[in-house]
Amino acid sequence: MLKLKRIAIDTHRESIAYLSRHCSQFKAEEFQALERIEVCGAARRMPATLNIVDDPQILDADELGLSEAAFDAFGQAAGILVSIQHPRPVESLEAVRAKIQGYELSPEQYASIIRDIAGLHYSKMEVAAFLVGCAGFMTSNEVLSLTRAMADVGRRLEWGHRLVVDKHCIGGIPGNRTSMIVVPIVVAHGLTIPKTSSRAITSPAGTADTMEILARVDIGIDEMRGIVDKVGGCLVWGGRVNLSPADDVMITVERPLRIDTREQMVASILSKKLTAGASHLVLDIPVGPTAKVRNTAEAARLRKLFEHVGGQLGLSLDIRITDGRQPIGRGVGPVLEARDVMAVLRNDAAAPDDLRDRSLLLAGALIESDISVKGGHGIHRARELLVSGAAMKAMEQIIQAQGPSNLTLEPSSSGREVVAANDGVVHEIDCLRIAQIARVAGAPMFKGAGVDLICKTGDTVHRGDPLYRIHATLESDLGFAADLAAEDPGYGIR
Amino acid sequence: MLKLKRIAIDTHRESIAYLSRHCSQFKAEEFQALERIEVCGAARRMPATLNIVDDPQILDADELGLSEAAFDAFGQAAGILVSIQHPRPVESLEAVRAKIQGYELSPEQYASIIRDIAGLHYSKMEVAAFLVGCAGFMTSNEVLSLTRAMADVGRRLEWGHRLVVDKHCIGGIPGNRTSMIVVPIVVAHGLTIPKTSSRAITSPAGTADTMEILARVDIGIDEMRGIVDKVGGCLVWGGRVNLSPADDVMITVERPLRIDTREQMVASILSKKLTAGASHLVLDIPVGPTAKVRNTAEAARLRKLFEHVGGQLGLSLDIRITDGRQPIGRGVGPVLEARDVMAVLRNDAAAPDDLRDRSLLLAGALIESDISVKGGHGIHRARELLVSGAAMKAMEQIIQAQGPSNLTLEPSSSGREVVAANDGVVHEIDCLRIAQIARVAGAPMFKGAGVDLICKTGDTVHRGDPLYRIHATLESDLGFAADLAAEDPGYGIR
Repeated sequence: MLKLKRIAIDTHRESIAYLSRHCSQFKAEEFQALERIEVCGAARRMPATLNIVDDPQILDADELGLSEAAFDAFGQAAGILVSIQHPRPVESLEAVRAKIQGYELSPEQYASIIRDIAGLHYSKMEVAAFLVGCAGFMTSNEVLSLTRAMADVGRRLEWGHRLVVDKHCIGGIPGNRTSMIVVPIVVAHGLTIPKTSSRAITSPAGTADTMEILARVDIGIDEMRGIVDKVGGCLVWGGRVNLSPADDVMITVERPLRIDTREQMVASILSKKLTAGASHLVLDIPVGPTAKVRNTAEAARLRKLFEHVGGQLGLSLDIRITDGRQPIGRGVGPVLEARDVMAVLRNDAAAPDDLRDRSLLLAGALIESDISVKGGHGIHRARELLVSGAAMKAMEQIIQAQGPSNLTLEPSSSGREVVAANDGVVHEIDCLRIAQIARVAGAPMFKGAGVDLICKTGDTVHRGDPLYRIHATLESDLGFAADLAAEDPGYGIR
Repeated sequence: MLKLKRIAIDTHRESIAYLSRHCSQFKAEEFQALERIEVCGAARRMPATLNIVDDPQILDADELGLSEAAFDAFGQAAGILVSIQHPRPVESLEAVRAKIQGYELSPEQYASIIRDIAGLHYSKMEVAAFLVGCAGFMTSNEVLSLTRAMADVGRRLEWGHRLVVDKHCIGGIPGNRTSMIVVPIVVAHGLTIPKTSSRAITSPAGTADTMEILARVDIGIDEMRGIVDKVGGCLVWGGRVNLSPADDVMITVERPLRIDTREQMVASILSKKLTAGASHLVLDIPVGPTAKVRNTAEAARLRKLFEHVGGQLGLSLDIRITDGRQPIGRGVGPVLEARDVMAVLRNDAAAPDDLRDRSLLLAGALIESDISVKGGHGIHRARELLVSGAAMKAMEQIIQAQGPSNLTLEPSSSGREVVAANDGVVHEIDCLRIAQIARVAGAPMFKGAGVDLICKTGDTVHRGDPLYRIHATLESDLGFAADLAAEDPGYGIR
């Protein structure tokens, strides 16, 4: 038997076991050839990937180490006696193999796969095998089974008999921070909206990054519950809330592999909304040549899949296919976006129209889930709550409840303008290019960095007129971003 | 910049970088969200998977750690200054994504994927994505491209103008140690045969485990070359020879995922034979209900794929579809098998006929690659070399050259017989069951453990007659193995 030791290494949601090469009881290399082992002790068994340690400072010959995530999942005290064994076959992997061979899986098979993934019983390569197998094909009913399974392993929030609404955008449009306007409007109407958002991974800002300019967002599930109970809504980072533990593991594989299928998107979004306790969901699918969804046929297929799965799960879905042909608002980057959001909430004359109009459309759709509001009147009610300042007041309450931030709303001081190369009308703005330039300029790492759009599509420009301004904290970032913009500014003018 | 440190952890052919959570220069969690990073320094760049360290004893805040394999692949001294960056896209992963989406890949795409895999530029999950994508479908020409790419990243052995032969069995039949008889026979004939073999992973013994009873097998490529130059052949473990570095990485993913496609098998076997410098290969495909290949139709498909790829690569292939309906020889387990092999080489009257006959068949086929031997006469020449003691003498030379072992040829002392439950004729023996019982009895970990078959198919037995004897070193293993045998002895008698 070996003494259990916690190895203070964070292996990003993969269970790793560490064994000394000089262990006298277990032949390290023989076990490593199997890649996976099973850790046994205190009446528990847990599969893990094996790493061999050659340094007694890290691990002694009579110890078995577990990475932080594995130690937590095993749930036993350091120093207890454990042994290792050849891995028993993880049964649900048989279903993964069947999927790879092209079979349709049953709801029970999805349930067991997802339970094992959430319990960290799969290695990353096993998760990859599952996801790639699914990328081959999945029926609508398989997506339903997967979604249900993912929701079932999460801790489901219950809100009593209250009407609980949520909104979601599939993403891809820079500056599209409607959530930060929609949430205060529907809260002002009296609905409950426990909104969680992501941080940027490859984009210049996620809603969580932008909200963080105004308030603390790194909030756990219990504190979030308290905030929503008190003020009716929240705008927190989803990473700490852990609504969908299986999704949290799968994303660590999907992201580097860039597996980005419709099926995984539907399961990921709807399972989180289910565990958040939402009954009504408004979903924004922007369509444009540089958006995630390129054309209306693709949008229609995605919509049908959302409707099929959402409908079977008892979620009332209102799907809006919107214009995704250019960024929304003016700012791209946390501070610049937060500035636009506050301008809309303050009813500034200079606030970006498109950001306000898109927010009112989505908030109106959510408000109509209140049966006392007449069909078609939601958007009027939403405008009323915005214009009256009720939405701004709700936003201030949310900020107070989450904890106000002391960050500045000032953009980074170094700036450079990108100008039109010829006369004409702006007919297209490349969302991917603008996001890339803002990212290279330092967003979201430097909160004040990004791109501030001066012209949008339809504007008439003359050669030398400024199209947008790049903001950066570091001069070197400004230079790289300006070089990118010089190569291709992302604007079509004719 | 961070100081480079070697972290003495063997991560089994995956590049892992370690960064302190308290690193002031790089925000650990932001990088971890991307899973992969790029290590830059000394004009080198290398992708790696990021782990975060919370223990200053393992890593300081101003250090960047690399796992043993990563440190070696990076090839720089500890202490040099390095930085980390967001990963640049690994170009060949675009081809992997295309394969997942169902496209046929070009020879160039396979070449770039395999170069990146061999260079440890892929994470395990990226390797898994590639293998699962390939498991969907591969054309014969894709298998050819893959095989060529795998051979090209290995160090190819050159043997001048000599005729270089090799033999391979696709495996799955307990006791099938023909290589240890074929190699000395063809060496005695004067052919060159640089034979590498595997160790058992899930079976009770590989040829390398059995040969290790007689001689040292843990031999590197240069020493192997010297041995073959001196005596004409060898019987070494392939794990140290590293003939196919890409295969060595892929196997660490295929094995735990149990991805076992015909296409990967063909590419793996033929790429290794190519790098070993073989011009003629005899391939043994045993067929039987409990063998790897279940029926002759399956064997014919596999044969055609081998022929297509081998032919295009200029390898002269002689494929033998053989009887795989029961184990070969008597012993199953390293010592028991080595005993059978030596009995055949010594021309013992009690030596197992089937092991001798199968070996003569395959050795005869190899000998016919010598143009001075008439068609159909190879087997007679093989028998002559065996009966005359020339083969035994060649084996002794090989053992001397590799370094004789001092292990005993005695089976483990604890034994228990498994007897017939009824009268009748043995009509089938389950290869999988016998392998499982031998494995549970302790083979190959305990060299003398395993199963010693007393009856084979066609034998008439009476109730209570011994069918086989289980040998084990530990009493507990003997008990478990006997329990398994009591449940189902793996013998069909009627």
